[in-house]
Amino acid sequence: MSDTSVLEGLIQALRRLPGVGVKSASRMAYHLLQHDREGAELISQALHQAASQVQHCERCHTFTTQTVCDTCLDDGRDTTRLCVVETPADQSAVERTAAYKGLYFVLMGRISPLDGFGPKDIGLEKLMARASDGMVKEVILATNFTAEGEATAHVLSEGLKKRGVQVTRLARGVPVGSELEYVDLGTIAHALVDRRDA
Amino acid sequence: MSDTSVLEGLIQALRRLPGVGVKSASRMAYHLLQHDREGAELISQALHQAASQVQHCERCHTFTTQTVCDTCLDDGRDTTRLCVVETPADQSAVERTAAYKGLYFVLMGRISPLDGFGPKDIGLEKLMARASDGMVKEVILATNFTAEGEATAHVLSEGLKKRGVQVTRLARGVPVGSELEYVDLGTIAHALVDRRDA
Ligand SMILES: [Zn+2]
Ligand SMILES: [Zn+2]
Repeated sequence: MSDTSVLEGLIQALRRLPGVGVKSASRMAYHLLQHDREGAELISQALHQAASQVQHCERCHTFTTQTVCDTCLDDGRDTTRLCVVETPADQSAVERTAAYKGLYFVLMGRISPLDGFGPKDIGLEKLMARASDGMVKEVILATNFTAEGEATAHVLSEGLKKRGVQVTRLARGVPVGSELEYVDLGTIAHALVDRRDA
Repeated sequence: MSDTSVLEGLIQALRRLPGVGVKSASRMAYHLLQHDREGAELISQALHQAASQVQHCERCHTFTTQTVCDTCLDDGRDTTRLCVVETPADQSAVERTAAYKGLYFVLMGRISPLDGFGPKDIGLEKLMARASDGMVKEVILATNFTAEGEATAHVLSEGLKKRGVQVTRLARGVPVGSELEYVDLGTIAHALVDRRDA
């Protein structure tokens, strides 16, 4: 192997990271080789370990090193409710509220025609099967309130209702702690439509 | 190992990359595991290979997998000239001009007291020894025209002159193709001081 191809190969490899161009990749490679070889070996091992061990939970589709993840195995949960989120990070956010004790289904993405992600890429069939298991009474759609998240919620809602499952969506509204003056008008309009008894 | 710790470990490891916070690290980890496991293994191998094989060239201090790098081994070069640059990327820029046929010394950094990089971190002693080998007649300082690059050039210049080596610095001036109206005043001032016969 020629003198510079190991370094060149590292820079090219680092470009496979999302959002990393040739300039950042060079900066990363030089930094690790010059100042943090231990970090380089650590990342190398962590990547190999994750890529070889992490799979999708059989029940909720999230990342896990087991066949079924810890959350799905937790028998203290309300098995009649299924909360559908886009990512494990979204699931963590819902968990941190401590306001939900049911189970989850993690899409690991959203329907995004522009990025080439269709219903198959978000495990639609798996969700439909999961929601029709006879235990689940309500599916709470907690996809993001973005155009893609809303479109995903719409597609899921159509499919689930056909199967006779009760489908709900997180309420849209004014964020806690905010002043109306600074809230965008679309949010206020939705909060008006979704208004509740006081 | 618990269910989520492999993924958590990967996110923590990726944070050792410069400029990568917890949010980017999560995005990278999810992207690789969800869409590009081959990329994850590729980066893993490239990091391990580079971290275990790349060393500093004995003569010019740049990264190489050999004891002496290809550039230093190239016997078509003018051994009486040594161009000092901060990084391999700067060396490539000088090479691409095709206006220089001498050898290089790559500092792999710059003196930057704020970041804790002193003269030792840029291989100052190695450069002094290299420049006093009896072959080198002229050292061209091609560190960046930033505050840190200029300070580094100043320190190197002092040390080299003491050893009786001729020291030059890249000319400062108006960039080729630019209109004076849009050039910053400091650059115009330097171009005036460094003016040459027309
Ligand atoms: Zn699960
Ligand atoms: Zn060399």
